[in-house]
Parts: sequence; C-alpha cells; structure tokens
Amino acid sequence: MYYIGIDVGGMSIKAGVTDKDGNVLHKTVLVTKGEYSAEYTISNDIHALIVKLLSEANIPESEIAAIGIGQAGSIDSERGIINYWNNIPMKNVHVVEELHKWHSCPVFIDNDANVAALGECVFGAAKGIRNMLLITLGTGVGSGIIIDGKIYRGEYGAGAEAGHMGIVMDGEPCTCGRRGCWEAYASVSALIRQTKAAMAAHPESSMHGIARDMGEVNGMTAFKAARGGDETALEVVKQYERYVAEGLISLQNIFRPQMFLIGGGISKEGEYLTAPLEKMVYDGMFDKETGDGIKIRSAALHNDAGILGAAALAIKSL
Amino acid sequence: MYYIGIDVGGMSIKAGVTDKDGNVLHKTVLVTKGEYSAEYTISNDIHALIVKLLSEANIPESEIAAIGIGQAGSIDSERGIINYWNNIPMKNVHVVEELHKWHSCPVFIDNDANVAALGECVFGAAKGIRNMLLITLGTGVGSGIIIDGKIYRGEYGAGAEAGHMGIVMDGEPCTCGRRGCWEAYASVSALIRQTKAAMAAHPESSMHGIARDMGEVNGMTAFKAARGGDETALEVVKQYERYVAEGLISLQNIFRPQMFLIGGGISKEGEYLTAPLEKMVYDGMFDKETGDGIKIRSAALHNDAGILGAAALAIKSL
Repeated sequence: MYYIGIDVGGMSIKAGVTDKDGNVLHKTVLVTKGEYSAEYTISNDIHALIVKLLSEANIPESEIAAIGIGQAGSIDSERGIINYWNNIPMKNVHVVEELHKWHSCPVFIDNDANVAALGECVFGAAKGIRNMLLITLGTGVGSGIIIDGKIYRGEYGAGAEAGHMGIVMDGEPCTCGRRGCWEAYASVSALIRQTKAAMAAHPESSMHGIARDMGEVNGMTAFKAARGGDETALEVVKQYERYVAEGLISLQNIFRPQMFLIGGGISKEGEYLTAPLEKMVYDGMFDKETGDGIKIRSAALHNDAGILGAAALAIKSL
Repeated sequence: MYYIGIDVGGMSIKAGVTDKDGNVLHKTVLVTKGEYSAEYTISNDIHALIVKLLSEANIPESEIAAIGIGQAGSIDSERGIINYWNNIPMKNVHVVEELHKWHSCPVFIDNDANVAALGECVFGAAKGIRNMLLITLGTGVGSGIIIDGKIYRGEYGAGAEAGHMGIVMDGEPCTCGRRGCWEAYASVSALIRQTKAAMAAHPESSMHGIARDMGEVNGMTAFKAARGGDETALEVVKQYERYVAEGLISLQNIFRPQMFLIGGGISKEGEYLTAPLEKMVYDGMFDKETGDGIKIRSAALHNDAGILGAAALAIKSL
C-alpha cells in the first residue's frame, strides 16, 4: 500500500505518493498563488491534484492506504477542519468531509508545523525519538511538539505556538499584536532587521558587498560575512543566537525533550548554528545534574519535508 | 481498598490514608526539620510513618492498594529514585526499592508539583479536565503539567520547570543562576521584594501599617492594602499580575490547556487574583478566534493537597 502526502502552502499545493519507508515515488505541484480554482474551494483543488498525481504515477486509488494533509493556518485535526488561515482568508472549511465525497480512504489533516515535526520523527533527523520539538525559523517562528510519539495540539489544535511566548516583556512589536514574542527576535525576518541595523551602523562591514552580490539583505547575509570573519557580522550572529537560545532554554526547562530540531532555510547553516546554541542552552538550563544535557540538531527533511510530514501523518494516524 | 498518600517536604513528612473518592480517613505527621532518623535515610522515616499511620487508623496493610509519594526535588518517577534534592542534600536515593523491603503493595513517587496537579484533576478544581497546568506561586514558581490525564515529566523527570522560562531577557537574577526567569518576577518572594520597594518609595502607603500589624511584609501585604484602595498597593498588585500573566500567556500559547490553576498561599486571594489574570492573558494570547478563550481558577485542595495528590498518584498509577 501507498500513502499520499499533501503540503498546502500560501503559493502552491504539493502532493506526493510515498511508500511506508518515506520514499517519494512521484510528486506534482499546483501553483495557486493563493487563488483557488473555479469552484473556489481548497478541497476542489486538493482533489484535482490527487487525481493528477495518481494518474501521473500510474497507481490506482485502491492502493492508497491513507491521505495526509499538512496545512498552514489554524487546523482542527480532530474534526478535519481549517479553523481559519490568515494568509488566505478562509474560515471553517470542512476539508476532510469534502474530500470524502470523492475519496474513500482515510484523510487526515494537521497544521504544517506539527506535520513537519512528525515527519522528522518518522523519516528524518529524530527517527525513533518520542519527545522532541521542531522549531522552524522563517518568516515567523513555528513549533511542532511531539510528546510520546504523537503530535501535541492543545485545545482545538490551537496550541504549539512557541513563537509567541514572550522573551522580552514589553519588547519589540510582534505580528500577533503583542510585544516581546520570541518570533519578534528569533525569526529570519527579525534577523534581517538586526542585520540591516548593524549594516547601517557599520558601512565598512563586508555585509554590504555580500548583500549587493545577492541582490538583497536576507537571512544568509550575516552568516556568510561572519564565516568570513567580519566583526560586525559575528556580533549580529552571536546576538541572534542569544535570542534563539533564550526561547530554547525556556522550552528545555518546560519540556526536557530528548531533542530539539531547528528547521527552516537557516537550518542549512548546520553546526555553525546548532553547536553554539547547544552550548548557550546548556549553560542556561535548569537542573544540569539530571540526565544527558541537551541535543540540538538541524532538521533533515529539506525539499520534500512537507510531503513526507503529511505522509507520516497518514501513516501514524491509521 | 484504601490508598496512602505521603507528602515529603523540607520540614515534615505528612501521611494520610484515603478512600478512592479522596476522603482522608486518618492522617499523621512527622516533623523532621530536614533531619532524618538514626538510620539517616528518608526511606526509614517514611516507613516508620506508614506503620504509625496504619496503626492509628486501625487499618491492616492488606487493605492498602497502593502508596503514593509526593516529594520535593528532582524525582525519577519511572525508576523510583530521588535524583537530588537541593534543600536537603541527598542524591540517588532509591526510595521505592527501599520501601519494598517492608511493604509489598505498589509504591509510586513523583515530584510534589506534579502530584499536586494530578490531585486537582482527580479530586480538586480540575475534576474531569484532561489538559491543564497548575502554577504554584510560592517561594519559587512551580508547575505541574497534565497532558491527556497524565503527568508530563520530561526526560528523567526533569521537565515541567515553567518557573524557569525567561520573561525578561537579562533581567532580575534568579535562584537558578540565570537572569529574567518567570520565578524572579512572579514568585511570592518576588512580590515581597516588589512590595518592599514600593513601601520604601511611599512612606504614606497603608502597607506600612498592615506590615506592622502582621509583624512582617509578606505576600498578603500588598493585596490587603489594595483591597482597601491604597494607590501604591494597587500599583504593586497590578504590576505583579502583569508578571504572572506574562508567563501564563507563553504557556497558553504553547499548551492551549483546558484550564490553568493557581496554587500556593496566594491562591486564597481567589477571583481578586484570577479574574484580572484571565483578562490579561486573554488580551495577550495568540489566536483568540479559535476555541473558548481561557480559564484560570484557584486550586481547591488546600491543607490536604499534598496527601490527596500523592493518593491520586497511587490511584492513577495502578
């Protein structure tokens, strides 16, 4: 039997068919740019993509054991509903019920950050780990929490928003309307803000040339310059790591997981990012006497993370 | 059948025999002041207290289904070991194994904050609730986390230390060696510090008279004066509530529990404390659109909380 993993994002819907070991046999994509088809429902587009995927892969639907969907936004996975999605305005969309009009196999849906964490536990860098957190550093700071091998969701699936814990009371404004959230300091958007501020104060920094070559200031600018020994960039990276560590220390003290994974584009910095984080969190954590300290690694599933996470949801939910 | 609940604290060991509905049939106490008996092991003293309890209650040991122990310090409940206890120096004490030399029924041990949270779920203010956090505001800030009806412990039982999440990066020094922990702002010790600072700046405040009458500045001083309309005290209480709310908002966003309970002596302030907290946390929380907002209540098990929590551990672990 096979599984279908579907990754619904703001600009596209990706779908892949996998086996139980996480091999992606075939994949396909529908570029939506946030606009949906004639019928104007996301369920219709997901359905159309499933039909296309199976036809291209030449696999009959009877060989699909289950479909998993990883979806941005607030998801009620128990009821199979998109509560709402702030990027693309939609509310109370009964995705699973809609898809069952066309597909008879079980369909499961969950938040994309949750699904990504589960994918890492089943196929990725946290294989065999039962208690872990995946922290995704991107436009925002996302988190997926796995407790005892299962996704922790909170009431109505509205939990696991670790990006919105406060680290600096009354600090920088956050997109959520509050001040001082971890996301306002540790997201890549925040890193870019920090990088630009340091560049403005240091016209001599090599970050200016790097940004010119790349055509923009992005999450890599400071890291690239820091690897080259640029003093200002080293300061930017160190302070950014302190912000990331500050939130990780809180989560370490609350959860004491077996492992943290760092996801998002920035995780490609690998140990250059995770090794200093590990040291900072160890130095700051409560009760070092007990246990094995702390383990922070980079997420392993890159390009197919969304599809594999959704497939893992299908496999684990059966 | 009956259950024995044992509450091991820094100054005394309390023991009670209960039925399955949480009625305490008989209780007794051993004052240790942190010093243990001739054999100088905590297990000996717990054993002696069990013998005394059953004799006084006139209940044969054969009618005891299980013994539960709530113990301060770092506890490895899976292995039945006190990892260490910082108040009273001890390390790697195999309590459960020792007690089995004398008692054949199952013995369970867990951290006192965990056991208190479980007790509230089984017998107290969170009856029937499956996902909740008990936050104990006292000398420190303790937390017990119940997920899906079970205690969440983290690796080696070293998790659930929400008092040591940071709320003010590089802020006030905390007893744990770091700066800016929630405990350094939201504990009763912190409230007393905040009260004293406000009193020093405001010699006209009624808090001075209240403290004189009570013989000391304590956690009630500001609350008592605030209820009487004292402007300075109202400011102290409001700012203290902001600190408590800051941590609760983070925990709400991470866990989205069904309920928070506030424990510790200060919980006797009741709705005077919990109502403004509820409003502050609702105002600051992420994703108000989904679900039923937030519920913050006072813990209900007061004097017998330790015994009933330990008895709940015995009942639930069987």
